[in-house]
Amino acid sequence: MWYRKELRLSPGRAGLHEITHRVEEIVRESGIRTGLCHVFVRHTSASLVIQENADPSARRDLQESFRRLAPENAPHYTHTAEGPDDMPSHIRSALTSTSETIPVAEGRLALGTWQGIYLFEHRSRPGTRRLAVTLSGE
Amino acid sequence: MWYRKELRLSPGRAGLHEITHRVEEIVRESGIRTGLCHVFVRHTSASLVIQENADPSARRDLQESFRRLAPENAPHYTHTAEGPDDMPSHIRSALTSTSETIPVAEGRLALGTWQGIYLFEHRSRPGTRRLAVTLSGE
Amino acid sequence: MWYRKELRLSPGRAGLHEITHRVEEIVRESGIRTGLCHVFVRHTSASLVIQENADPSARRDLQESFRRLAPENAPHYTHTAEGPDDMPSHIRSALTSTSETIPVAEGRLALGTWQGIYLFEHRSRPGTRRLAVTLSGE
Repeated sequence: MWYRKELRLSPGRAGLHEITHRVEEIVRESGIRTGLCHVFVRHTSASLVIQENADPSARRDLQESFRRLAPENAPHYTHTAEGPDDMPSHIRSALTSTSETIPVAEGRLALGTWQGIYLFEHRSRPGTRRLAVTLSGE
Repeated sequence: MWYRKELRLSPGRAGLHEITHRVEEIVRESGIRTGLCHVFVRHTSASLVIQENADPSARRDLQESFRRLAPENAPHYTHTAEGPDDMPSHIRSALTSTSETIPVAEGRLALGTWQGIYLFEHRSRPGTRRLAVTLSGE
Repeated sequence: MWYRKELRLSPGRAGLHEITHRVEEIVRESGIRTGLCHVFVRHTSASLVIQENADPSARRDLQESFRRLAPENAPHYTHTAEGPDDMPSHIRSALTSTSETIPVAEGRLALGTWQGIYLFEHRSRPGTRRLAVTLSGE
């Protein structure tokens, strides 16, 4: 059994935005009890991470760490026409994930207790983000 | 056809722990001949990598490289209540993978000759790690 | 419905090599209309990224950034027998992805407008690269 749905997000600013409940809603709609849920970001300047859902300080530190791993205005960048946050966005996307696949068990996402699914927005002024959610299972 | 199984691991210390044979065992049990095997870590301070299974020095260098990319006690960390290895664990998990999907062909994992599946444990004193293995195929 | 095919690539040099059209060809062959396409690199010194397909400068900057994140000849490397590009290859592979899964909709890869699938070759003088493409769907 297959189920597909587009998820549109307007995050508004750079950082980690939890989407667990939005994905969970699609899992429920699908009626699938056992299977896999695939979430795919259709952009190259935003990505996905599965991270701790308890303490917001962990997400802020994570964001700051990626700012340091892929800084703005690095002297070797030549792809600069789309602004100082463009090239870092591509690097941070490559370092994290364009898609995540999560098990579905008993009709729910089988995440660990402390895991949440986050859109990692790398752009300062992003447009609407489109994600493709695909479920397969029985 | 779907097959699900939980894998419990007690790695005992930080570093790369091979789990290829444990996953292969579940593939055999499933009876699936052609399909995909999805391995998912239900934690945010341990992750997965598919890496060279020949020379242990490659794994040690990899671990050391991630120690440098996401060091302990970085001055910008604010999420420090759970110890100096907590925030680096989250960053190293985001830089690697919460899940890996491996093709199954002729009833076996279709890994390359030099590839092994590793749990990358980022905590110094981890508890038991729970992984969800999901197979789909025919 | 399942469809499997091996993809052999002779990239010839380090860097990002677009394979979108090669994967798209296999999607067409499969006859699958709705589902998922899984691409898996059977090596530990080449990997996959989904990146911007418009401006080549973004890919060059990305490659240079990974050269800096995982440099050749780092003083802590002990795994050096296979040449100066070997250990960086493993680290860059761990930082990116051994496999990517892309949704299939209406018989085509449902990539975003600016997304392309790239083999990220980390070796200076690679041999032929073998990828396993697995489709499931209906």
